[in-house]
Amino acid sequence: MPVTPQTQPIIALVVRQNTAGIEEPVRRLVDFLSGAGYRVVFEADTAAYLGEVGVGGIEALSVAEIGERASYAVVMGGDGTMLGIARQLAKYDIPLIGINSGRLGFITDIPLDSMVPALDEILQGKAQAEERTLLAARVMRDGVEIFCSVAFNDVVVARGTGAGMVELKLNVDGEFMYNQRADGLIVSTPTGSTAYALSAGGPLLHPRLQGIVLVPIAPHALSNRPIVVPESSEIVVELVAGRDISVNFDMQTFTSLQLGDCIVISRSPHTITFLHPRGWSYYHTLREKLHWNEYPTNEGKLT
Amino acid sequence: MPVTPQTQPIIALVVRQNTAGIEEPVRRLVDFLSGAGYRVVFEADTAAYLGEVGVGGIEALSVAEIGERASYAVVMGGDGTMLGIARQLAKYDIPLIGINSGRLGFITDIPLDSMVPALDEILQGKAQAEERTLLAARVMRDGVEIFCSVAFNDVVVARGTGAGMVELKLNVDGEFMYNQRADGLIVSTPTGSTAYALSAGGPLLHPRLQGIVLVPIAPHALSNRPIVVPESSEIVVELVAGRDISVNFDMQTFTSLQLGDCIVISRSPHTITFLHPRGWSYYHTLREKLHWNEYPTNEGKLT
Amino acid sequence: MPVTPQTQPIIALVVRQNTAGIEEPVRRLVDFLSGAGYRVVFEADTAAYLGEVGVGGIEALSVAEIGERASYAVVMGGDGTMLGIARQLAKYDIPLIGINSGRLGFITDIPLDSMVPALDEILQGKAQAEERTLLAARVMRDGVEIFCSVAFNDVVVARGTGAGMVELKLNVDGEFMYNQRADGLIVSTPTGSTAYALSAGGPLLHPRLQGIVLVPIAPHALSNRPIVVPESSEIVVELVAGRDISVNFDMQTFTSLQLGDCIVISRSPHTITFLHPRGWSYYHTLREKLHWNEYPTNEGKLT
Amino acid sequence: MPVTPQTQPIIALVVRQNTAGIEEPVRRLVDFLSGAGYRVVFEADTAAYLGEVGVGGIEALSVAEIGERASYAVVMGGDGTMLGIARQLAKYDIPLIGINSGRLGFITDIPLDSMVPALDEILQGKAQAEERTLLAARVMRDGVEIFCSVAFNDVVVARGTGAGMVELKLNVDGEFMYNQRADGLIVSTPTGSTAYALSAGGPLLHPRLQGIVLVPIAPHALSNRPIVVPESSEIVVELVAGRDISVNFDMQTFTSLQLGDCIVISRSPHTITFLHPRGWSYYHTLREKLHWNEYPTNEGKLT
Repeated sequence: MPVTPQTQPIIALVVRQNTAGIEEPVRRLVDFLSGAGYRVVFEADTAAYLGEVGVGGIEALSVAEIGERASYAVVMGGDGTMLGIARQLAKYDIPLIGINSGRLGFITDIPLDSMVPALDEILQGKAQAEERTLLAARVMRDGVEIFCSVAFNDVVVARGTGAGMVELKLNVDGEFMYNQRADGLIVSTPTGSTAYALSAGGPLLHPRLQGIVLVPIAPHALSNRPIVVPESSEIVVELVAGRDISVNFDMQTFTSLQLGDCIVISRSPHTITFLHPRGWSYYHTLREKLHWNEYPTNEGKLT
Repeated sequence: MPVTPQTQPIIALVVRQNTAGIEEPVRRLVDFLSGAGYRVVFEADTAAYLGEVGVGGIEALSVAEIGERASYAVVMGGDGTMLGIARQLAKYDIPLIGINSGRLGFITDIPLDSMVPALDEILQGKAQAEERTLLAARVMRDGVEIFCSVAFNDVVVARGTGAGMVELKLNVDGEFMYNQRADGLIVSTPTGSTAYALSAGGPLLHPRLQGIVLVPIAPHALSNRPIVVPESSEIVVELVAGRDISVNFDMQTFTSLQLGDCIVISRSPHTITFLHPRGWSYYHTLREKLHWNEYPTNEGKLT
Repeated sequence: MPVTPQTQPIIALVVRQNTAGIEEPVRRLVDFLSGAGYRVVFEADTAAYLGEVGVGGIEALSVAEIGERASYAVVMGGDGTMLGIARQLAKYDIPLIGINSGRLGFITDIPLDSMVPALDEILQGKAQAEERTLLAARVMRDGVEIFCSVAFNDVVVARGTGAGMVELKLNVDGEFMYNQRADGLIVSTPTGSTAYALSAGGPLLHPRLQGIVLVPIAPHALSNRPIVVPESSEIVVELVAGRDISVNFDMQTFTSLQLGDCIVISRSPHTITFLHPRGWSYYHTLREKLHWNEYPTNEGKLT
Repeated sequence: MPVTPQTQPIIALVVRQNTAGIEEPVRRLVDFLSGAGYRVVFEADTAAYLGEVGVGGIEALSVAEIGERASYAVVMGGDGTMLGIARQLAKYDIPLIGINSGRLGFITDIPLDSMVPALDEILQGKAQAEERTLLAARVMRDGVEIFCSVAFNDVVVARGTGAGMVELKLNVDGEFMYNQRADGLIVSTPTGSTAYALSAGGPLLHPRLQGIVLVPIAPHALSNRPIVVPESSEIVVELVAGRDISVNFDMQTFTSLQLGDCIVISRSPHTITFLHPRGWSYYHTLREKLHWNEYPTNEGKLT
């Protein structure tokens, strides 16, 4: 007796826009997943984009519908595409699988040309599941919450280009940490520690480390070094001085701030689950992305 | 009926050698503690030193005896003195109280001139207890353990001055991390993150963060940045190339290494408990020691 | 026969606005300089401000008039005040003397309470003269210069807060250096090397070093390190990608940029001359401002 | 009439030891140079090594003889080989040509497989000559010089692995700079700025910059940043505290030091001249070696 459509598990596909030549791999993926007994749906924007390039006839669902009804979401694109959809799907606890359509990403780790065997393995339950934490942030003004968002990478408070330094007052778990004068502050998850925080001088945090790192951007005081606090911490960033200050969440959502505003940051109750093929290694990704250990012994620089 | 000596709780005193004028505060401390009903003993080296400067007549115990029999150890000196005794007392789970005889320390936080009220408060049970993790390290050669030690700050593998870079192969929890070419590597606890690791470019780790930081010393590859791993990790450092390499534990114990040796580092089952007076704040200490927020707004540098 | 006014050398006074209690020192200074045979004038904005707080009756000159006619300009304020006026006076080659009304500055080095003996010495020709270089920058669009400015500290190209990284293409003396992806780029004089460039990770440059330092702000590539080029270099920064990009000169003049714009930076033909009292030392200033060598031997941190 | 041997210009060949398969390129080079009318000689150690691997019958000269009599020295190996011979030949002002037998070096820039056309061009006078500065250092004890050396990359003062920090007192041109507590100090030329100094956090210095950079190694004070001074400076490093301290010059010559010793460092009167094929670019080398601009726009990391 064949499986009836209504009982078929749903797999949603999210594809980066403007990816030349993506049609063929998408069709190959749809064929494979359908053949494996899944009902394949496209995320609504993906459906519109793929429709234009000739991959039509596939059911479209909104992100919320995917969150509620799909068993898995497969993302084809780069880390930015994954980041964008992961933030939206966070509250639904749906596992994500990342296929990279270009250069290997930190969180889109399956190369296009091995996607079928990798997905086959993962869907047979041989996946390596990995959970990533998110931050939840609320912007408070005069005691009232005026904005809230989640962040998968980071919450960034920063000055505009035309303004001098900001002064931020930090409290962690109710304790005063310091007044920091800088271009801004990055509050980052382990996932975000390989992104903007790294460029600003922060350390790498292993994804299983239960920590949040605070990285000042171009701080006035040379001793204002990055600090890693437990992920159970409540971090309150208060705007003490400066002009043209805003906060962003993963560089995807922005809010302008006023002096006196407080951003209250803590771990989100939700997490994001990535499914990797077996043998996946976080350190392997770091080595690839950061060009680690590419010099064999006895080669190298001048000294 | 007076309390008999055998039932009196014991407090051990450890004092830094060669501290001019320490006799008076020591006598004051002994008087206070005796008056509070404690049996005061001196650690053996402390007894010898203080005997020479005229503070005699106090019972001396070895470090092991203190560990087994004392209720508290009070350390008068600097962070180095505390570090030295804490490493030895780690396995006995005896709480430590640090009185600073000079400039404020990271872990000797009670100023000399307020030691009596601070101790009074602590001994009445109003202390703020703080637990610090330690590392346990074993040096393996040809599969045999040739050395083991604990580290409160850090385990440091480094080359001698007359030798070129070392090459170290790192494995974490059985996974290959990278081959690192550098002057050496610092594996540090949160406590050690304000010490040598900070000078070498590492981040600060909050004492309650359950993490260990790996900080390369002058690494050849600019992308070999500090990385923080969960404290549950087993870190294996293998010597692949180099000459005149040694490992030290808190700069207090040293062992020479050969190529092929592995240092296996993990969290120690023991912890160290510090007792602080109420109101103690880790961030306050950081602010003092690192000159944080000492510039009021609208002062500062050229830009 | 007394010196007639028209032959008296002119000294101009520039004072920071909104400095509580500055009237008394200003009057003291005016009295001293008049008594020493100088004709004291106020820069026009200074005159307006001081008039409001009751220091009136002194001749006011515009910055241009000061540049053309005065023998010296004395600046009372902080480094920001000095920076602002020095940029404007650069083309007139008039020596500057900096009196600090608050905390010691990098370039306003005479404390308020020793200004009279210091000025006395300087005006008697016992000064230590120090020359500082400036940058001249032109913004080119489609081959046409749309803006030009000098910079005493730095020329800074940076993205707005709401935009991702900028991509800049650098050419130095006609040779391609690299494409840099970052928050922005600081091109700094030795004077600016203690300002924003330092916060962004740049080195200190001695004022007599004939060099310009390029410091990327939060660069994507970890190997994009600060680079010091000869001051004879012509540096061309081309905007390749990004949004909401602007360039500023000493954080005092700003211009919005478009993709394709080029900023052409080279040494200005003008320099700024500071007069210091004898015994002045650049390293002394660094020690004071950067808290160098404040720890006596045998004190210090944990290790 | 053929050119007689005694009037033939001499070209010396220096080859890295233990380079598998070097015989064939060496023979090819000798043939080419002989054919071009040069008298080819081997540096003595090179002659001994090449004799063992079957490239015999070529005249051997000592380094001093080469310095005095040869017109050019061609170095086949890596940067280390070049560094070693350049230090010895510095006082003879003989131009050097670097052929890299492995991966591209900073100063051995001609790939093995294009050496013949590159040399052809260079020897026809179409070379791009580039001058590099050296440091001259003297170690003074009780006012007496006990050692002297030149350094092409750097002069490094450092502690042994078993010792704590060193304390160094720095004077530059007779002015006190600071007391520095660190693992050590690197005093580097522009050439050395891509070597050990870079690993320790120093900036890149363009080869034509007339500067010397002082880079502290793991300094205790976080504000002890690298500082670039004019190359005309006399830098005096005095050993104030520490144990087991030594100084090395390019990691090739070492001397043990005592407390009180002073190392006096200044620019050497000699320079080293490299000959590059036309089109050579310092920035091209940096891009290759430091992986600059290898990410095309719109690829990249997570943010």
